Amino acid sequence: MSKFQTSIPRGTRDFPPEVMIKRDYLFEILKSVFEKYSYLPLETPAFEMLSVLEGKGGDENEKLMFRILNSGDFLQPLAQSYNPENLFKNGYTEFSSLIAEKGLRYDLTIPFARFVAMNHATLSFPFKRYQIQPVWRADRPQKGRYREFYQCDIDVAGSKSLFYEAEILVVIRNVFEMLNIKQVTTFINHRKILLGVTQALGMENKFFEITDIIDKMNKIGMEKTLNELSTIGMTQENISTITGMFSIFGSFAEKLLTLINLFPDNKNISEAVSDLNMLYNYAKAMGIEENEFQIDFTLARGLGYYTGVVMETKIKEDAISICGGGRYDDLTGVFGLTGVSGVGISFGAERIYDILEEKKLFPETDKSKVSVLIASMDSQGEIAGVRLLAELRKKQIRAVILPGESKLKKQLAYADKNNILFVLILGPDELANNSFTLKNMTTGEQKIVGSLEEVYTNISNNPDNLKQ
Amino acid sequence: MSKFQTSIPRGTRDFPPEVMIKRDYLFEILKSVFEKYSYLPLETPAFEMLSVLEGKGGDENEKLMFRILNSGDFLQPLAQSYNPENLFKNGYTEFSSLIAEKGLRYDLTIPFARFVAMNHATLSFPFKRYQIQPVWRADRPQKGRYREFYQCDIDVAGSKSLFYEAEILVVIRNVFEMLNIKQVTTFINHRKILLGVTQALGMENKFFEITDIIDKMNKIGMEKTLNELSTIGMTQENISTITGMFSIFGSFAEKLLTLINLFPDNKNISEAVSDLNMLYNYAKAMGIEENEFQIDFTLARGLGYYTGVVMETKIKEDAISICGGGRYDDLTGVFGLTGVSGVGISFGAERIYDILEEKKLFPETDKSKVSVLIASMDSQGEIAGVRLLAELRKKQIRAVILPGESKLKKQLAYADKNNILFVLILGPDELANNSFTLKNMTTGEQKIVGSLEEVYTNISNNPDNLKQ
Repeated sequence: MSKFQTSIPRGTRDFPPEVMIKRDYLFEILKSVFEKYSYLPLETPAFEMLSVLEGKGGDENEKLMFRILNSGDFLQPLAQSYNPENLFKNGYTEFSSLIAEKGLRYDLTIPFARFVAMNHATLSFPFKRYQIQPVWRADRPQKGRYREFYQCDIDVAGSKSLFYEAEILVVIRNVFEMLNIKQVTTFINHRKILLGVTQALGMENKFFEITDIIDKMNKIGMEKTLNELSTIGMTQENISTITGMFSIFGSFAEKLLTLINLFPDNKNISEAVSDLNMLYNYAKAMGIEENEFQIDFTLARGLGYYTGVVMETKIKEDAISICGGGRYDDLTGVFGLTGVSGVGISFGAERIYDILEEKKLFPETDKSKVSVLIASMDSQGEIAGVRLLAELRKKQIRAVILPGESKLKKQLAYADKNNILFVLILGPDELANNSFTLKNMTTGEQKIVGSLEEVYTNISNNPDNLKQ
Repeated sequence: MSKFQTSIPRGTRDFPPEVMIKRDYLFEILKSVFEKYSYLPLETPAFEMLSVLEGKGGDENEKLMFRILNSGDFLQPLAQSYNPENLFKNGYTEFSSLIAEKGLRYDLTIPFARFVAMNHATLSFPFKRYQIQPVWRADRPQKGRYREFYQCDIDVAGSKSLFYEAEILVVIRNVFEMLNIKQVTTFINHRKILLGVTQALGMENKFFEITDIIDKMNKIGMEKTLNELSTIGMTQENISTITGMFSIFGSFAEKLLTLINLFPDNKNISEAVSDLNMLYNYAKAMGIEENEFQIDFTLARGLGYYTGVVMETKIKEDAISICGGGRYDDLTGVFGLTGVSGVGISFGAERIYDILEEKKLFPETDKSKVSVLIASMDSQGEIAGVRLLAELRKKQIRAVILPGESKLKKQLAYADKNNILFVLILGPDELANNSFTLKNMTTGEQKIVGSLEEVYTNISNNPDNLKQ
């Protein structure tokens, strides 16, 4: 391979046909379910103004952003005002702000919020959209983590109703039912529960430190978590309160009841419990089962932006997160449009793809499968073959020909390599007799057929062929 | 709008749902036809190494390329070696090569060639792929020309056979048949014809100047063209030879015959004529009609890279170009893999979209159409409504509810604005009587129905509803 002066950028991938066909299968299912629940498609540009991308998010995301050099002579506007001596002195952040005003999107939520803010006058709220597009992050590439990857998001803007959290549960169920992925559970928490607990412990000022530690509990275990909590100054008493809270068990309703008994006077906790009760009632009304969703007080992801319900979907057996989402009370506020609540979930396409692959859940039907190769031995046979090709394709039979190839052996080898079911041979004898030789590549059987109709019957009688 | 500090980058667009639904319709047809002819899907990353993008193309494309700043502290690797005094002295091209190693793709051919070169050992040739992805060009935005736009390409790598040029004609026919766009003609020329003519006139060294002028003829007219040709030193005698060639008329075969009689001894011209005869025979064998393709000796687009047949598809009545393509004798040579011929065509998605819009050819069926809005007046009705919603959706009826909205008037207004066919009212009376009021939003008719079955019958009997 070293002969080629070519490579693709780190953390990016080509998707060859055999992968694309599977990805299309996955995306088509996502789209069909999203549309069933009246989410509408939206696409936004690959890059946005940095002022938009940097509006939310903060340092972490800014670091991961790919910036685009201004077009043309990007130095020219600086020529009068910029002192080159500052180049290394003032650092790359200042300089990049002078030569790059656009960046590749790193998620689909910011562009969605920007779209809603810009178009709110003409949109009908609640506005439900889905968006399946790549995003880019200059993250360190590793197994399962790429610099270019697709996000598949649904979001609702313009309603505070917990109905939509429940509807999201229905969408999740439907998607994984259709993908044949079983034992999927969505874990649910509420920002105000964690906030209320830190308030009750008198540690509200350490909200993010505490929730960051709790967020890691699944990875580091309970003991280390409690240890870390004491490191940041939590008293033993508070730690046992927290431990008590983490140990609450029972059904969805029981957990909420126990929680409210533990913290009876906290406004945030009662609001959260009221929200979660609403969500529960809506979910039940829509037929969601108890095993599909459960409270997890340790779920603390995305609290930098989520303001209400937080959700994470996992497959039971391996605890891999496959969806994540939540509610933003003020989705579009950063763009000057206040009072628009948003809630949404993002399906992790790359992970779901890997799971489908691992569990062999991709359908065997291969829409790329060619049924017939028309083989010829000379230019006369080739032109006759091209005519046949057109006829077969008219009958919706997927056929190909290898023009310019006169060796039968090579043509058979091609059919073999590409899993083509039949080879239709048009040699000089066949041409002279107005017939075809039809070779079944699976059985090796070979027979002479007298008409195109007969060819057609043979091919369409093959069960493998009906899968198309 | 000035209230919002938001905008999208010049030359880019959001695609709101009503546009996305139409774009999906177009892309689905393209995909289905491409797949029918055994072209397989491929996707490549949004950005490539600049060494790849700059391999072909030359100045024009390089100027239009969006470059991506290296991640992290892009200045740090320069700190030791770069003298800031050179910043303005040596110019932006040198400096950008130091701080940007990646660029957004500006077409789909270069990434395809790079993919084939990198994966040739495992691919089965001829390799036929389609690719529908956005590309980016820092062009001056204007009506119909964007900085982000989709290309829809099919290409075949690894066969020199003119069969594929003919197959492309079949694909073009099929696409426009399915889109219901009529009177489509593909104009065909061959690089070697234009090369042969300049040789015959003793002006081969001015090949590009001459063909650039010829390329503009459709815009500037014959007179100005001939005038420009004389400006670059073409003699009156040569100009009349050229004029004679442009005036050749007749069928495909007649044009070629006249041409070969005009230039009987030129090797390039005879090769081109032989190629075009092959193409003609293949096209005929596949059932292509005379009015679908014709020779145009003035077609001179893309001669910087095409080496054989050049094609351009237009709609007769308005002469708008909607497809363009041709053959590259050495598709992958720049990446070190020689001997791979390629041929392909690119469908101009944006233009085709505009034509479908202008001619009102998008289907009326609107898969976003919601059939039923469930309206409730209180929280009890709402929960009952949510249950109903789940039932209707199970029956594949597209239904929505407006949770948290108790005013019937507002709910009816929403149904009206969103073209929802029925409103199913669940007021206190209806709840008490175990019935529903069903309002037909088109006729205004309102009736009480006693069961969900009856609701279902009413809705599914509505012809508008069957379009879903």
